Amino acid sequence: MTRSDTSRAEAFSDAVIAIVITLLVLELSPPRTEPGGLLAGLLAQWPTYLAYAASYIYLAVIWLNHKSAFLRVREMDVGLQWANLGILATLALLPWPTAVIIDAAEKGNPADERVAVGLYALIGALLCLSWLAFFSHLARHPELTEDEVEDSYFARERPRALAGVLSYLAAGAAGVLIHPLVASVIFVILPVFYGITSHGIDYRPAFLRGR
Amino acid sequence: MTRSDTSRAEAFSDAVIAIVITLLVLELSPPRTEPGGLLAGLLAQWPTYLAYAASYIYLAVIWLNHKSAFLRVREMDVGLQWANLGILATLALLPWPTAVIIDAAEKGNPADERVAVGLYALIGALLCLSWLAFFSHLARHPELTEDEVEDSYFARERPRALAGVLSYLAAGAAGVLIHPLVASVIFVILPVFYGITSHGIDYRPAFLRGR
Amino acid sequence: MTRSDTSRAEAFSDAVIAIVITLLVLELSPPRTEPGGLLAGLLAQWPTYLAYAASYIYLAVIWLNHKSAFLRVREMDVGLQWANLGILATLALLPWPTAVIIDAAEKGNPADERVAVGLYALIGALLCLSWLAFFSHLARHPELTEDEVEDSYFARERPRALAGVLSYLAAGAAGVLIHPLVASVIFVILPVFYGITSHGIDYRPAFLRGR
Amino acid sequence: MTRSDTSRAEAFSDAVIAIVITLLVLELSPPRTEPGGLLAGLLAQWPTYLAYAASYIYLAVIWLNHKSAFLRVREMDVGLQWANLGILATLALLPWPTAVIIDAAEKGNPADERVAVGLYALIGALLCLSWLAFFSHLARHPELTEDEVEDSYFARERPRALAGVLSYLAAGAAGVLIHPLVASVIFVILPVFYGITSHGIDYRPAFLRGR
Repeated sequence: MTRSDTSRAEAFSDAVIAIVITLLVLELSPPRTEPGGLLAGLLAQWPTYLAYAASYIYLAVIWLNHKSAFLRVREMDVGLQWANLGILATLALLPWPTAVIIDAAEKGNPADERVAVGLYALIGALLCLSWLAFFSHLARHPELTEDEVEDSYFARERPRALAGVLSYLAAGAAGVLIHPLVASVIFVILPVFYGITSHGIDYRPAFLRGR
Repeated sequence: MTRSDTSRAEAFSDAVIAIVITLLVLELSPPRTEPGGLLAGLLAQWPTYLAYAASYIYLAVIWLNHKSAFLRVREMDVGLQWANLGILATLALLPWPTAVIIDAAEKGNPADERVAVGLYALIGALLCLSWLAFFSHLARHPELTEDEVEDSYFARERPRALAGVLSYLAAGAAGVLIHPLVASVIFVILPVFYGITSHGIDYRPAFLRGR
Repeated sequence: MTRSDTSRAEAFSDAVIAIVITLLVLELSPPRTEPGGLLAGLLAQWPTYLAYAASYIYLAVIWLNHKSAFLRVREMDVGLQWANLGILATLALLPWPTAVIIDAAEKGNPADERVAVGLYALIGALLCLSWLAFFSHLARHPELTEDEVEDSYFARERPRALAGVLSYLAAGAAGVLIHPLVASVIFVILPVFYGITSHGIDYRPAFLRGR
Repeated sequence: MTRSDTSRAEAFSDAVIAIVITLLVLELSPPRTEPGGLLAGLLAQWPTYLAYAASYIYLAVIWLNHKSAFLRVREMDVGLQWANLGILATLALLPWPTAVIIDAAEKGNPADERVAVGLYALIGALLCLSWLAFFSHLARHPELTEDEVEDSYFARERPRALAGVLSYLAAGAAGVLIHPLVASVIFVILPVFYGITSHGIDYRPAFLRGR
């Protein structure tokens, strides 16, 4: 039989991430403008386009990291299932603080903008916390990983997730105490960092690949 | 060939559950507040957050139970397909009574709150009834299960589903006759019970696992 | 390698049908009622519940027929891909005439009710027409079917699809000329007929099953 | 093990395309008409039906091209993953300029109609640009393709994608400078061209098929 124990968790995760990434586009709609004002109306929506691009790239990075991690998982126990379900629960929330930031930016009240970046930072930290739980569980249970994965692999992934938790909390604090723009810049940089370090390239020896 | 007879039913069920669990987040949106009132507006939405968490956990528990049951199914006949489609039809309904409860709680009319928990109890009982039909069909048709599954396995699952039907009906009666809060507490406890007893751990001998 | 040529078409079809069947539930929402009027408001929504049940059962029947047909397909050419895409395009439309019927029934204008059942009949006939194209293509191309499928199998499926086209057109005519209720009754009976004749049971000899 | 390195990318792409193609139907809803005006209301919605048909066919063509391309891919590196994610990001946008065109056509302001077809052309060009990046990456990395695929195969696919970029830009320019209708006609012709040239037929020798 060909169903490995991780196949349904992978299919379920793929479906959830695909839905979240596709629902982002529902935010885009024809602007309500006076006759002849369409061009100006479309250009005025630029924060929404930026948010679509940023959220899409962030979710794509998460998916690549997810795929890369599961390549190394052979079998799942209940703890790992719940850690994965925690990742899915927090990434599915991402469109919500994104919408809150866009809404606050459009209204332009400084106090609300600080609250909005604080909320985004909180959700971002929770997402990294779920990854930390996921990596920690695998570090403590090497029997769940593929044979060719070094026992220290997932232990070495933990600092990367912990750095995310602390960075999002720091970004949120900076956004609330200093300026929302400081937080927003960090929000854009962090997914780039995780994208570059996603180990998406399968660097295992050739005879182990394509499995 | 590698397509087992259950693979499309599993993929279809995964997709339905993934969609339902992801659509929950559409309930979350930027609160409509006066400038400067975002923090208060976000905090006032707490019943929605609680409902998101509770619904997400409940659907995750159902998915784990579904996965655990299908690990033991080798082949599906029409009766089992319809029992599975009944499970999917009732779980897809769950966000609806959840939204009715939140709506009633926000408006605060006691009579409406009783009706809302009664509706939730009814849908919950129907969901457990679908599981009862699913387990009963497998108990009567041992030829549909994997060879290494004991013939009594699914017969022993039936009381667990029947307990759910009765618990939801009892919770609904208590919510209508005594107080909606009594029902709400039982609604939160029941998924925890099914989560703990989901047999999510594959405790079959090692040579049968990972299949 | 294990990916057969039909696997992506099956996965794509499963995803489309799962989305359509799940989006049906978005029609259900807390009724807008005065305080204390929730029970009456919920009961007044009964046409929506009936439509949910009928649409869900119809789509479930289509999925079972789809699964049953694809069990017998070994390979797909471009013609079969487009026939399958035609089935998906028309079944995805089903929630729309359903919503039009509910809307017309709520407003109670007899002329609009006739138009609504006419629209439903038209979409239903188009769906059966897609199936007719699908079966006809397979009947003309026996090299696309599994080896153990009799060459006459899909030729024998054609009358079943043609009967659907004619029944929906007849139901629409009866609904427009006689009474919308006549059409509605036929709309409920037809999926039951296709459910019973879906060949969902795998009656091939045991050594060919589970493939 | 049976999971090839492309399987999750294919499943993820299938889910995204299935969601986008199904969400198109959400644009269809019962028209708001006076009692007795349903037939006129339905007929007046004809641009929406045309847009549904055109968008559905376009997305179906993209899916067939995607399936055809991935049949020839053996393994994915990070560059190919991002090229695929770029295709998904731009195709998910398609319903948005479609809705903008319908909206502008309903309002009938000539300046807005030119802007709307310009937007559609821009998104269409971006989509073809993503395909160009995808084919170019495979042309430069023959080690990622299946063994039986000629090294020049994906190099020969590049002009087809480049022609799309230029055609959409030319259509947009013609729509803005001459008349929106010119652009709309080109928008309908282009997917037909890509549908006919999608290589959907598996013309490899028989012993290599069904893989």
